[in-house]
Amino acid sequence: MASAIRSTLQFSPSQRQQIDPYLPASKKPHVTLTFATSLDSNITLTPGVETPLSGPDSKSMTYYLRSKHDAIIIGAGTAIADDPSLNSRIEGVGGYGGQGLEGQPRPVVLDLRGRWDVSATSKVVKLAREGKGKAPWVFVGAAVAEEKRKTIEEAGGKFVVFEDKNVDSLVEKLDWRDIISELSKEGITSVMIEGGGVVINELLSPSYFDLLDTVIVTIAPTWLGKNGVQVCPDERFAGGVKIPVGKLKDVKWVPLGEDVVLCGRPNIDRG
Amino acid sequence: MASAIRSTLQFSPSQRQQIDPYLPASKKPHVTLTFATSLDSNITLTPGVETPLSGPDSKSMTYYLRSKHDAIIIGAGTAIADDPSLNSRIEGVGGYGGQGLEGQPRPVVLDLRGRWDVSATSKVVKLAREGKGKAPWVFVGAAVAEEKRKTIEEAGGKFVVFEDKNVDSLVEKLDWRDIISELSKEGITSVMIEGGGVVINELLSPSYFDLLDTVIVTIAPTWLGKNGVQVCPDERFAGGVKIPVGKLKDVKWVPLGEDVVLCGRPNIDRG
Repeated sequence: MASAIRSTLQFSPSQRQQIDPYLPASKKPHVTLTFATSLDSNITLTPGVETPLSGPDSKSMTYYLRSKHDAIIIGAGTAIADDPSLNSRIEGVGGYGGQGLEGQPRPVVLDLRGRWDVSATSKVVKLAREGKGKAPWVFVGAAVAEEKRKTIEEAGGKFVVFEDKNVDSLVEKLDWRDIISELSKEGITSVMIEGGGVVINELLSPSYFDLLDTVIVTIAPTWLGKNGVQVCPDERFAGGVKIPVGKLKDVKWVPLGEDVVLCGRPNIDRG
Repeated sequence: MASAIRSTLQFSPSQRQQIDPYLPASKKPHVTLTFATSLDSNITLTPGVETPLSGPDSKSMTYYLRSKHDAIIIGAGTAIADDPSLNSRIEGVGGYGGQGLEGQPRPVVLDLRGRWDVSATSKVVKLAREGKGKAPWVFVGAAVAEEKRKTIEEAGGKFVVFEDKNVDSLVEKLDWRDIISELSKEGITSVMIEGGGVVINELLSPSYFDLLDTVIVTIAPTWLGKNGVQVCPDERFAGGVKIPVGKLKDVKWVPLGEDVVLCGRPNIDRG
């Protein structure tokens, strides 16, 4: 005797609206901002040129962090300047002793103006083809050339056309809440953001500070000097008086080789 | 039978010159540069206004450091802005459980343009009169008004007229080697320099980096934002290529409350 298939149930939008505030909200992905600076808060000596700052232990930590996040976001500027690998080389992750791509983060490149000339020789694409990392998702402002699309898709990645009202502005200014929410829809539950300078200063500003769950800063015992790319957010005022831009709480300092690693959470209670 | 008093001996300058390179040199005082910054390398939010940055543990450390140096040097700008006490309040030093002024550093204020309006109500003078600190030595460019002189001398300090070729320049630019050498002549064997911004950036520059024996930086987990007073030395080039201004060696990071304390020595080997 076959059991009757039960019929689909209806629960109307207006009914849902009544109940939803009492139910678990769709959880925002955990957002980690991480970067390395000199003592004078420079991330590089010169715009567009990577400066080796932190030691080998800090490098290992970065790869560990990557293995603990679903995705890494970088800006097109960093993709162009550094040709980064964006994978994790920690022992035990996929491609480095582990199964499949387990523990490999998804590289997400924000390139709304289509500046990144990604090709089969880009590190991130090569690693994906070798099974040592996931292929990138590239957030673009408009459809891309067929060849570029094929390169990314054959490696297992994709282009996401992302509509943003500020796309045409001179600075590639994005709404970070939209980006995080878009990634959440794609099933991403944790995101690591590695900079460059414009991105970091934006995320440390009051507009986005509460979007961050964790900030991890590596500091090297070096001064790079004036006219580098500096982490220093726009100044902030309250009642006409200048106040600190942002503070961290739950702070931990971890010496690592010659460097120190600062872990903390945004202190947004102080308003 | 009284022993004959032996006659004074002669050893000519030219003879001395031959031998001196093989003898212990007159030792330069140990110079410690110390300051506290935010993560974006600001020491204050606004020029001329002290910003509380570091926590109570870091404050104790500063007082400990002061008890370990013969003298503390500050610029007139800091004297004017902060009205600092410049003594040590560590238990066991003179005035705080200890005998006399044992362990109290000599405050040295660099005021070549005579800007510091020191009076009987200045903290550093009051503390000296109460037996809780040494009275300041003030390095000036010209003789000072009688009243000022009396105030300082009655408290046990003095004015030192210090000739420097750059006295008249807009910025109070001093030759640090001359200052340290002058203090050495006064019997000072160790000197702590606490800033402000102009002084710190000057001492971190290649001209003076080798004059420093120790650098101690306290870093607070806060971003102060743009247009503060920032530690960021002038950029440096070698063969037309931008290079780091200065690096530390023998580095130790000591977490202290919410802050971290970095101790190191200038790495001058790298040229």
